Amino acid sequence: MIDENILGIAAGTLTSVSMLPQLIKVIREKNVDDLSWVMILVLILGLSLWVWYGFRKDELPIILSNAFAILVNGTLFICYLLYKNNAD
Amino acid sequence: MIDENILGIAAGTLTSVSMLPQLIKVIREKNVDDLSWVMILVLILGLSLWVWYGFRKDELPIILSNAFAILVNGTLFICYLLYKNNAD
Repeated sequence: MIDENILGIAAGTLTSVSMLPQLIKVIREKNVDDLSWVMILVLILGLSLWVWYGFRKDELPIILSNAFAILVNGTLFICYLLYKNNAD
Repeated sequence: MIDENILGIAAGTLTSVSMLPQLIKVIREKNVDDLSWVMILVLILGLSLWVWYGFRKDELPIILSNAFAILVNGTLFICYLLYKNNAD
């Protein structure tokens, strides 16, 4: 039987890694045409509720992976604000 | 105190809703240039581990929201296969 924490950390690592290419692409190309700021905010709100849920359930994998996702999407939102006028 | 299941369902609804615009955009435009199939597969693998984690912890909000995300990203992957030769 695999330990639940190891399972959660593996799950969180994979879902976290899968977000990075979009962030790298936006930072490299300084192009946010494909981002929707409304959806980034909806996502950050949802992720924040997951962190809250993780604290309530006392589950570290939930807290860590959603906190990381907030960091990634918070950075995407800042990129959106910085680059939104870059449209060519 | 908010019930943990309600908190988890609210969190899962928001993170699920935030995925839909990309799916709608890809289906509507039949353009998958911005998708990375490697990352979709990494994500689906991670989401599957989250569903497994949810079953092990017996947490319905985790199971439902990640199963929904697998459905969305599985559809994105099918779109990728269907439209990858559409590049113009």
